[in-house]
Amino acid sequence: MTEKNEKPNIPTKPLAGFMELLPAEQIAFDRMKETICASFERFGFVPLDTPTIERAEVLSAKAGGETEKQIYAFKKGENDLALRFDLTVPLARYVAEYNRELTFPFRRYAIGKVYRGESPQKGRFREFYQCDADVIGNGELAIANDAELLSLVYDIFSRLDIGRFVIRISNRKLISGLSESLALGDKTTDVLRAIDKLEKVGEGRVRAELTDAGISADAVGKLLAFVGISGTNDDMLGELAALEIPGDLFAKGVEELSEVVAYLRELGVPEDAFAIDLSIARGLDYYTGTVFETKMADDRIAGSVCSGGRYDNLAESFSSQKMPGMGISIGLTRLFSQLESAELVQKETKTVTKALVVPLVSDMTVPFKIASLLRAANVPTEVYLEENKMKNKLAYADKLGIPYVVLVGEDEIAADAYTLKDMRSGEQKQVPLDDLPENILV
Amino acid sequence: MTEKNEKPNIPTKPLAGFMELLPAEQIAFDRMKETICASFERFGFVPLDTPTIERAEVLSAKAGGETEKQIYAFKKGENDLALRFDLTVPLARYVAEYNRELTFPFRRYAIGKVYRGESPQKGRFREFYQCDADVIGNGELAIANDAELLSLVYDIFSRLDIGRFVIRISNRKLISGLSESLALGDKTTDVLRAIDKLEKVGEGRVRAELTDAGISADAVGKLLAFVGISGTNDDMLGELAALEIPGDLFAKGVEELSEVVAYLRELGVPEDAFAIDLSIARGLDYYTGTVFETKMADDRIAGSVCSGGRYDNLAESFSSQKMPGMGISIGLTRLFSQLESAELVQKETKTVTKALVVPLVSDMTVPFKIASLLRAANVPTEVYLEENKMKNKLAYADKLGIPYVVLVGEDEIAADAYTLKDMRSGEQKQVPLDDLPENILV
Repeated sequence: MTEKNEKPNIPTKPLAGFMELLPAEQIAFDRMKETICASFERFGFVPLDTPTIERAEVLSAKAGGETEKQIYAFKKGENDLALRFDLTVPLARYVAEYNRELTFPFRRYAIGKVYRGESPQKGRFREFYQCDADVIGNGELAIANDAELLSLVYDIFSRLDIGRFVIRISNRKLISGLSESLALGDKTTDVLRAIDKLEKVGEGRVRAELTDAGISADAVGKLLAFVGISGTNDDMLGELAALEIPGDLFAKGVEELSEVVAYLRELGVPEDAFAIDLSIARGLDYYTGTVFETKMADDRIAGSVCSGGRYDNLAESFSSQKMPGMGISIGLTRLFSQLESAELVQKETKTVTKALVVPLVSDMTVPFKIASLLRAANVPTEVYLEENKMKNKLAYADKLGIPYVVLVGEDEIAADAYTLKDMRSGEQKQVPLDDLPENILV
Repeated sequence: MTEKNEKPNIPTKPLAGFMELLPAEQIAFDRMKETICASFERFGFVPLDTPTIERAEVLSAKAGGETEKQIYAFKKGENDLALRFDLTVPLARYVAEYNRELTFPFRRYAIGKVYRGESPQKGRFREFYQCDADVIGNGELAIANDAELLSLVYDIFSRLDIGRFVIRISNRKLISGLSESLALGDKTTDVLRAIDKLEKVGEGRVRAELTDAGISADAVGKLLAFVGISGTNDDMLGELAALEIPGDLFAKGVEELSEVVAYLRELGVPEDAFAIDLSIARGLDYYTGTVFETKMADDRIAGSVCSGGRYDNLAESFSSQKMPGMGISIGLTRLFSQLESAELVQKETKTVTKALVVPLVSDMTVPFKIASLLRAANVPTEVYLEENKMKNKLAYADKLGIPYVVLVGEDEIAADAYTLKDMRSGEQKQVPLDDLPENILV
């Protein structure tokens, strides 16, 4: 027998793989999102917000492989629907649909939730934020864009101020050109996919995978020797030029990579913030030129925190127009979760409030007047409206980390000057009404 | 026979009932969202972002009726999942789950997408933004909170600057108390639901619905006469006090409504921005006191643009703690769509960019240096990187509405002073490098 007032047994925990934050963490997360957003806008990218739900066929046109299996798909009435798994496929559909209304090069950013049915494990999320910026050309797009977007990555991670990082850069035409020169042109996709796993699974397993793909031991050796080349950026560029690998594709790759490096220097990206790394291949099939990953120096932040690259024909599934693009993408939920685990998240406050008005009288006329004045001066303000002991009202400010309290008692009202208490130092002083905002905004 | 290069026949239009905007509209939409967000924070509400996907049982615990049928539900593996249909049910689950970690009164705002499978028609969306602010007490919550949240509604709609509006306010205890005094206590829910439709379907149909519910003609007459009472706010309060309807509930309703009106005046909300309207009942079952709707004076904006009210026990499905709250909710997607139809959306620009650097040289060193300088000064800046005629480069700025162009030619580089062109006035002048930011930020 259940009692009438027993609470229903509905679980209140969020689902596994879904991030949910307490206020202090949420504020820190939102500040990171705002920093990224501000950088995107400073570089002249416009906001775009496409629906979270797409026709299933739109997503499966571009998914393929692992991603396809991870799609959240469902029916509503007659429609086969699915939740977007990235922000790039919706962008491809968007530029195909609105091609004539848009001005190219089209620069857009998008910050939104995407969904993948990954098996939940540490650092893997089923719902997560991606923060993307892409520039799309109509027909053509200058290589300087690749460098400019990499400098945007540098700008963002410098401003996020979460530690040292290196943007590792390559160009897919290098491995593709090398594969062609080894008569492996039909196996380029296999080669790129195998090499993409190098850091994760190690050389032995990549060697096995390449061998399984029918590539000779000699060719495998050459490929692995190639991606292992190391040195300063200038050393690497010199070595690439000296390799004398035949074919236009490889030469084009060297040229593009050299241009990107030169532009990065002109853009003021410091030499220790980027590194040519020939093992960077990226898993997705649509990249055709520049590819990059961003690695934090702190090894508690595993994997790439920002990746992307150049694609020659983003919207080919949706349009006959050729639209080359270059994009960057930050997986913010995963990054935040790793920063949180490493205790690197700055959680200064549990509230956005800067001033708590504490009435010591029952008439709210003056407390509300003070709150209105402070809010008009853009001071985030609360009034403690509940009946409670003075001690408990101050404890509320203390628990949330509200920096200032304005006490409103009979004496204060008579003098029209109020006790302003700095909760961090404990100091308090009498401040005339009109001077309150400037005393809090300091 | 299909040709190899024929484009696949995948529709690129967004699904019916899903809003998708071009850049100028998206920028205007985002500015509205930012205005709302800034007001929420100015009133000391903290951001909260819960998952879009919930366990189906969490949502059906609170849905019921029409809403339940509209839920987007699906299975992933073994899990019955659903997309949230509002931001209130996830809040109820959240406060139940994190009760011990939160500080009460808990003030949170949430701006996010919600989903309802409505039949798509003008002004009805299946995916739409809600912008909510709620304050939740632990056990108790002072009535002054109701007034403060209504003053937040006033603050937001004043700042949105989309025309005159009136916040129409009532208190559910009035109709509930009146129903009890007419011995209709068991039919209160029917009465509230019928009266909620008054403006939409007219008095005749509400009369029929009440009669069908088994209410006598005499009682129906009294209910309809009651909700038809009109006059100034003070007239209405006087009349309510004079009605002498027996029972504590009605008296409590009059007292709460009088207090809310008094507090609104103390909060500086002007008399013509709010009106007591006894026909405001709200459809949802969980309201127990103050209820309100916000109506734009411009009748091209139909329905309520911001509604909400007081609930005594938000989390009752999830927790045995009593948590009364007061909340407001703006359906931003629908509001934006109506403003757009009425041509009331300010679409000033198709970009956030304030300065376009136009290189007349092929070396990007100086153009990039200028862009970095402007960006460091928080001027959103683009560099025109494509090869193109001067005329076309300027046309790009013109089409997007970029206000300033910085021309970088050989002469400019030699003098280290650049031609700054004001695209609106057509005026141009030579400006030394370091003075560029201040000449654009004006």
